[in-house]
Amino acid sequence: MNIEHKTPVTVIGLGRMGQALAGTFLKAGHPTTVWNRTASKADELVGQGATPAPTIGDAFKASSLAIICLTDYQAMYEVLGASDVELDGTTLINLTSGDSAQARDAARWAEQRGARYLDGAVMAIPPTIGTAEAVLLHSGPQSDFEAHKSTLDTLGTVAYLGADHGLAALYDVAGLAMMWSVLNAWLQGTALLRTAGVDAATYAPFAQQIAAGVAKWLPGYAEQIDRGSFPAEVSALETDARSMAHLIEESEAVGVNAELPKLFKAMADRAIAAGHGGEQYPVLIEEFGKPRAD
Amino acid sequence: MNIEHKTPVTVIGLGRMGQALAGTFLKAGHPTTVWNRTASKADELVGQGATPAPTIGDAFKASSLAIICLTDYQAMYEVLGASDVELDGTTLINLTSGDSAQARDAARWAEQRGARYLDGAVMAIPPTIGTAEAVLLHSGPQSDFEAHKSTLDTLGTVAYLGADHGLAALYDVAGLAMMWSVLNAWLQGTALLRTAGVDAATYAPFAQQIAAGVAKWLPGYAEQIDRGSFPAEVSALETDARSMAHLIEESEAVGVNAELPKLFKAMADRAIAAGHGGEQYPVLIEEFGKPRAD
Ligand SMILES: NC(=O)c1ccc[n+]([C@@H]2O[C@H](COP(=O)([O-])OP(=O)(O)OC[C@H]3O[C@@H](n4cnc5c(N)ncnc54)[C@H](OP(=O)(O)O)[C@@H]3O)[C@@H](O)[C@H]2O)c1
Ligand SMILES: NC(=O)c1ccc[n+]([C@@H]2O[C@H](COP(=O)([O-])OP(=O)(O)OC[C@H]3O[C@@H](n4cnc5c(N)ncnc54)[C@H](OP(=O)(O)O)[C@@H]3O)[C@@H](O)[C@H]2O)c1
Repeated sequence: MNIEHKTPVTVIGLGRMGQALAGTFLKAGHPTTVWNRTASKADELVGQGATPAPTIGDAFKASSLAIICLTDYQAMYEVLGASDVELDGTTLINLTSGDSAQARDAARWAEQRGARYLDGAVMAIPPTIGTAEAVLLHSGPQSDFEAHKSTLDTLGTVAYLGADHGLAALYDVAGLAMMWSVLNAWLQGTALLRTAGVDAATYAPFAQQIAAGVAKWLPGYAEQIDRGSFPAEVSALETDARSMAHLIEESEAVGVNAELPKLFKAMADRAIAAGHGGEQYPVLIEEFGKPRAD
Repeated sequence: MNIEHKTPVTVIGLGRMGQALAGTFLKAGHPTTVWNRTASKADELVGQGATPAPTIGDAFKASSLAIICLTDYQAMYEVLGASDVELDGTTLINLTSGDSAQARDAARWAEQRGARYLDGAVMAIPPTIGTAEAVLLHSGPQSDFEAHKSTLDTLGTVAYLGADHGLAALYDVAGLAMMWSVLNAWLQGTALLRTAGVDAATYAPFAQQIAAGVAKWLPGYAEQIDRGSFPAEVSALETDARSMAHLIEESEAVGVNAELPKLFKAMADRAIAAGHGGEQYPVLIEEFGKPRAD
C-alpha cells in the first residue's frame, strides 16, 4: 500500500522496547528485518510484515541501517561478536542503555570493524514510541545522524547532542536525575501537606507551577556557571540555608522524612564553609562537580 | 491624586520585606501607617507619604488592618505584647516566616485578644513585591481573607489555601523543597555534562524541558496517592532503582558528586524491600510520610 521507498531497517533485540521500535518502523512502511535471541518474540512482528532473519549475520546483510536495543552493552558484544557478523559499511544505532564510557568504547569497537556508529538513549516507555512524546537522544558523527534523521523521526522526537558518543548517556541520566528530583520534591511536599489533611490532588497543581516556574530560571543561572561568577542578585546561599533549616524543622515537627532537606542543607553548608555564603545558589556547582571528600 | 478611597493599612516591621510591602501600598494609594523598632528605617517611606506611628500602640489605632513582617514569631510576640497594644477588632495578616505550629499558636494568641488573624507566607524577594511574580500565600478564616483580598492583591499574586492557619507555612516550605530540588537536579546534570565539555547554557534548556514535562505528570500521580493504589502503569519502581544505579555509577565514573542519586536510590530500595518494587513511583509517599526509622 505504501508507494514511497522507505529505508530498509534491521532491528536487533525484540524485548519490550525493540518490539515497539520494529512495530513503529513497520507501520511507517519501512522494510523491517528483525532478529532476537529468543526467535519466538519475532512472531507478532512477522505477522505484521517484518522479515525474520534466520541468523544474526543475515540480519546485518538485510539492511545497511541497524537499530540495536538489548539489555546492556555486554549483550551487544555477545550478539555483534558472532562469527558470521559482517559490519563493514553498516550504520549501527545503539539504543541500549549504558554509561558514557561504554558508549565511547562501543563506538571505537564498531569503527574498528568498519561500521558507522551512533549511540542513543530512549527517554520513553514502549507504548509512546512513534509519538512526539517519545524523546530519543543521539550522539556521534553528525553526518551519520543527518543521513538517518528522517528514518529516526519515525520513532518520536529525535535530538542530536554532539559528536562525543558519550553525550546521549550523559543527557539521559541527567534527565532522569531531574525526573526523580521533581517527583521526590513533590512527594516531600505532599507528605507535609497530608499532615494538615490536604489531599495529593489539591497540592499537585501548586507543585507543578513551582517546578515549571523554577525551571525557567535555569538558562539565566547557567550564565553564572559559565562565567564562573555568582553575585547574589536574587538571594544569597546563606538565606537559602536558613530556609532549609526551616524545612527540616517543619518536616521533623510533623513527622515527615527529612533526609532530602538534610542533604540539601549539608551541601549548602559545605559551600558556605568554603566561603560562598554570600553568593548565589548556582555556586553549588563546585560541590556537585566533585566527589564527596570525606 | 488618587481619588478612590483605599483601605488604610498599617505595616509593622520595615526590614527589606516590610519596606517593599509598605512602599507598594503607598504607591497604590493606600493610606499607610508604618512602625519599626529602629525608627529611622521609616524615613524613606515617610518621604513617600507614609505616616510614622510614634508608638506601636498608635500603629494599631491608625488602621483596622495590620500587616506584620518581622524576623520571626518571637519578634512578633515581643512587638505585639507591648502594654499599649490594643488588638480588639483588628485584622492581623502575619507575613513573618515560621512553621505551621507557630502559625496555629499565633492564631490562637491573636484570637484570644479579639483580633482576626490570617497567616501568610511571601514566596518572593522584595523587588518583585507589587508584581504578579510575587506569590503571597494565606491561610485562616476565609471570610477574613475575602474581606481584604482586594487590598492584598496590591502586593502580587495572592492565594488562599484554607482555614487551617498552618497551611501557608506548609505550602511555603513545600514550594521551597521543589525549588531546591529542581536547582540541585540541574546542578547534578550540569556537573555531569561539563565532564564532556558541554557548557551550562547548552544543557539548561534540556533540564528546563524535562522539569516542566515531569511537572505535568503530578496531578495524575496524585490520584494514585489519594486512591492509595499504585499500579505500574508507566514503569515499576524496580526499573527506576536500576536506572538510579546507572546514575550513581556514571556520576562516580566521571568524578561528580553522587550523594543525591544515592539518597534517591536508598529511599527507593527501602520501598522495594517493603514489597513495593512492582508498583509505581508515587508509592514512595510511604517513605516520605514517615521519619527515617534507623
Ligand atoms: N522498556 C523501557 O521502558 C525502556 C525505556 C528506556 C530505555 N530502555 C532500554 O532499552 C533496552 C532494552 O530494554 P527492554 O525493555 O526491551 O528490555 P527486555 O524486554 O528485558 O529485553 C531485553 C532484550 O535483550 C535481549 N538480550 C539480553 N541479553 C542477551 C544476550 N546475552 N544475547 C542476546 N540477546 C540478549 C533479550 O533477548 P531474549 O528475548 O532472547 O531474552 C531481549 O531482546 C535496555 O537497555 C533498556 O534500559 C527500555
Ligand atoms: N527578604 C526576603 O527576600 C524575604 C522573602 C520571603 C520572606 N521573607 C520573610 O520576611 C520576614 C522579614 O524579612 P526581612 O528580609 O524584611 O528581614 P530583615 O530585613 O532582617 O528585617 C527584620 C525586621 O524584623 C524586625 N525585628 C527583628 N527582631 C525584632 C524585635 N525583637 N523587636 C522588634 N522588631 C524586630 C527588624 O527591626 P529592626 O529594623 O529594628 O532591626 C526588621 O524590621 C522574615 O520572616 C523573612 O523570612 C523575607
